[in-house]
Amino acid sequence: MGQRNIKLTIAYDGTAYHGFQRQENALAIQQILEQRLASLFGHPLTLHGAARTDTGVHAKGQVVNFHTTGVIPVSRIALASRGLLPPDIVIIAAEEVDPAFHARINAKGKEYRYRIYSGQTANPFLRNYAWHVRDNLDIVAMNEAAQTIVGTHDFSAFRAAGSIQTHPVRTMYSASVSEVGEIIQFCVTGNGFLYHMVRNFMGTLVEIGRGRRPVSDMKAVLARKDRFLAGATAPPQGLYLQKVLY
Amino acid sequence: MGQRNIKLTIAYDGTAYHGFQRQENALAIQQILEQRLASLFGHPLTLHGAARTDTGVHAKGQVVNFHTTGVIPVSRIALASRGLLPPDIVIIAAEEVDPAFHARINAKGKEYRYRIYSGQTANPFLRNYAWHVRDNLDIVAMNEAAQTIVGTHDFSAFRAAGSIQTHPVRTMYSASVSEVGEIIQFCVTGNGFLYHMVRNFMGTLVEIGRGRRPVSDMKAVLARKDRFLAGATAPPQGLYLQKVLY
Repeated sequence: MGQRNIKLTIAYDGTAYHGFQRQENALAIQQILEQRLASLFGHPLTLHGAARTDTGVHAKGQVVNFHTTGVIPVSRIALASRGLLPPDIVIIAAEEVDPAFHARINAKGKEYRYRIYSGQTANPFLRNYAWHVRDNLDIVAMNEAAQTIVGTHDFSAFRAAGSIQTHPVRTMYSASVSEVGEIIQFCVTGNGFLYHMVRNFMGTLVEIGRGRRPVSDMKAVLARKDRFLAGATAPPQGLYLQKVLY
Repeated sequence: MGQRNIKLTIAYDGTAYHGFQRQENALAIQQILEQRLASLFGHPLTLHGAARTDTGVHAKGQVVNFHTTGVIPVSRIALASRGLLPPDIVIIAAEEVDPAFHARINAKGKEYRYRIYSGQTANPFLRNYAWHVRDNLDIVAMNEAAQTIVGTHDFSAFRAAGSIQTHPVRTMYSASVSEVGEIIQFCVTGNGFLYHMVRNFMGTLVEIGRGRRPVSDMKAVLARKDRFLAGATAPPQGLYLQKVLY
């Protein structure tokens, strides 16, 4: 029997983990998945994840793939994994894909969402799931500034200082800031994201929302390509990898 | 300077605690609050809570009171407590009340809510905040059955087996089951609740929603006053003490 290439869509609460990617001396989501899937499929296996997510960052639609000689039908994987995986990591879909499919290399884009909780009183139920910002935020100004990043740009100003990626040019397909009750949501879809890019967008957008910077600053910062001109990096717990596009 | 009687409204995520009430050998919310407020007010103090909540049960509006000789103005208590309390326990309001006020004894009623998540796929973000029921539930039947408990009744059938409370008669002011997307919510307001009563209501309502019992069973079980005729106790993580009425 040949090998199958299995694509999984996964949701996880990142609160308890040191990010997605396997590492020494810290518990990552990839490690848990590889261990538990190895016991399910009967052999060691290596996952390819579409995106890294940092400590405390969440996913509603992370995608991974792996090759296996195991015989479990794809229709049974999600159910069979329930008792094996901790309750903060859930396989929401499984399918067999072309042998050449690679979750990261074949990804055409990703959608991220960032949630802010704007209530005056802390909300104990959102402490790990949103950034609590008490200041009044100008949503219209933030949404207008967010339009600046749509299109193809050199995003050096919004990547983590010291980041080693070589190509800072990415294309953002859409970006918006909207408000429902006390939740403010920033949605951004693009063909790729530099390290900390969404959280750096968010940090600058919040400064614009607070009125500490004009809307035009987003464009000026982008044009100058200097990380130190942008706002601080927003905290991880508001960030969600929503979807990977293929 | 005399003693003041302070009333606090508190929200907490009960996931990490062995319920509200102070106990030996297990961490309860009352103990945390008493310790941290003692350091804030400069003397040991005893909290009176309006309601006990069990392990894993949450509160959006628990009420407590305590007497203090401390001098912190009530307007500063919530802010001053922020750095002292863990982020899963939040003081949302503080006021000075009549010296005779007692959070439990003076409570005229309470509102509880119980949340069910009905999606087919597990949701890692709701694992500690709702009961996951995959079966299709008949919301109309559940809401109809919930009307049976409104009014003054002997609720022996819905109190925990072996419970030692002596008076099983309580009055429910309102009860309803409604659905928003994949969240089903049971809201119940009454003048008092027996041990496990809301979770026992919920367990029986879900059996009715599943079609395993007719709507009329709710009335029949209530009339028979026998705990063993009612449904199983629903799990704690879906339950919220929403509000205490005075």
